[in-house]
Amino acid sequence: MANGFERPLDLLNSARGKEVIVQLKNEKQLTGILLAFDIHINIVLDNAKEIKDGEVKRSIGLTFLRGDTIIFISPSVPSK
Amino acid sequence: MANGFERPLDLLNSARGKEVIVQLKNEKQLTGILLAFDIHINIVLDNAKEIKDGEVKRSIGLTFLRGDTIIFISPSVPSK
Amino acid sequence: MANGFERPLDLLNSARGKEVIVQLKNEKQLTGILLAFDIHINIVLDNAKEIKDGEVKRSIGLTFLRGDTIIFISPSVPSK
Amino acid sequence: MANGFERPLDLLNSARGKEVIVQLKNEKQLTGILLAFDIHINIVLDNAKEIKDGEVKRSIGLTFLRGDTIIFISPSVPSK
Amino acid sequence: MANGFERPLDLLNSARGKEVIVQLKNEKQLTGILLAFDIHINIVLDNAKEIKDGEVKRSIGLTFLRGDTIIFISPSVPSK
Amino acid sequence: MANGFERPLDLLNSARGKEVIVQLKNEKQLTGILLAFDIHINIVLDNAKEIKDGEVKRSIGLTFLRGDTIIFISPSVPSK
Amino acid sequence: MANGFERPLDLLNSARGKEVIVQLKNEKQLTGILLAFDIHINIVLDNAKEIKDGEVKRSIGLTFLRGDTIIFISPSVPSK
Repeated sequence: MANGFERPLDLLNSARGKEVIVQLKNEKQLTGILLAFDIHINIVLDNAKEIKDGEVKRSIGLTFLRGDTIIFISPSVPSK
Repeated sequence: MANGFERPLDLLNSARGKEVIVQLKNEKQLTGILLAFDIHINIVLDNAKEIKDGEVKRSIGLTFLRGDTIIFISPSVPSK
Repeated sequence: MANGFERPLDLLNSARGKEVIVQLKNEKQLTGILLAFDIHINIVLDNAKEIKDGEVKRSIGLTFLRGDTIIFISPSVPSK
Repeated sequence: MANGFERPLDLLNSARGKEVIVQLKNEKQLTGILLAFDIHINIVLDNAKEIKDGEVKRSIGLTFLRGDTIIFISPSVPSK
Repeated sequence: MANGFERPLDLLNSARGKEVIVQLKNEKQLTGILLAFDIHINIVLDNAKEIKDGEVKRSIGLTFLRGDTIIFISPSVPSK
Repeated sequence: MANGFERPLDLLNSARGKEVIVQLKNEKQLTGILLAFDIHINIVLDNAKEIKDGEVKRSIGLTFLRGDTIIFISPSVPSK
Repeated sequence: MANGFERPLDLLNSARGKEVIVQLKNEKQLTGILLAFDIHINIVLDNAKEIKDGEVKRSIGLTFLRGDTIIFISPSVPSK
């Protein structure tokens, strides 16, 4: 199971290059490949998509997302 | 009973590796294992779940949660 | 009567180990024993309870409360 | 008439030990004796009361009030 | 016409001792004599009044106003 | 076409003394002559007017506008 | 595919001089040519337009946009 995260940003670091789910404060969800982040939790997602009820609502592509709009960032888990 | 917390972050430190309940400003509640935190109260939860009325609404898994979305963090207490 | 508080945090310091009432920005009230605080007004409460109209709505126990969610913190006064 | 306030905090300093009216962002008003304040405009009020339409709604007593919840602080003026 | 304001605070400085109109974020308007201000735009008004539709709603008198509640501050212009 | 803005504040600098349109977070729009600005995007407008649907709603005159209430500032373009 | 962004601002840097889509917190969308940005994510857009449902609602032209009003900034992708 998950282990060895000394600091919260370690999780973001380990998620670089992988798909993540991003929950925004405005109730919307994005998925995409996490390319970069900084200490303000500003992030860059590639192939970003807005998701609602499991369906793609809008394709956004490469995007810069401001950290103060984010509630959580989770690495996607492949469903078995 | 609880004792010996000089500073508020001491409680978070003592809760590492244990289950916590996190109340968010958007009225939602998460539970999960607290893996890491920083001075902004950004946290990493493992096996996070969104809870409503005592039932699991959504399984989120490993997640990075931004500190400014949090109202409180409580170590879970085993019900007797 | 109250006296000798040079700085606002002096009141919080004098309330350590005692019961306080905490009014949150989201209209809710908590009571509990104030164990710790810092300059951001992050606090730790023990035996925290959510109160509404003088009745306990929810027992939260030991909890870390983020300072930016707080309106006021008052030492409880024993009713005579 | 009022005079000699070089900096805004000079008014708060001159109001120490006197009754003030505090308008909160959540539309509520408190009155009480101003005991202490800091540069964040965190304040301590003694004998604080919540006021609505000129009537006391709730007696709060000694309280620490977080600065970022405040709109204005006015020294009470004795009505003639 | 207005001239010679190198920095925004120069306008506030030139308005000291004069009547100003203050528009608050909560849709309310105050008028009063500007006595003091600081870099956070905290201000002290003397003889402050809450105004609505050109009429005085409430007399507040001498008051400390927190800067983060303010939209704009305008020197009153005598109507000709 | 527009060119040569190394930093965002360069645009504000080039707009000094000219008419600008200011969109506020509270859905309102102001026009006026930009006299001064600082790094917080606090600005001074001369001859400020509140505009709605292309019509002047209110004449505000010389005004200090707090930066955190602003969405955008655009130099006015003469309509051809 | 997108690659080589060490830090989030690298994406904004690579988008200078190109068309971007900017999603604001107030639910509105702007498009325009990104001319400049800073660490607060304040940006300058040229030929900015407000977009709704794929149609231009308002032409804004050259504009300074305050960073704290922004959710995301995406380089436009030519539709094939």
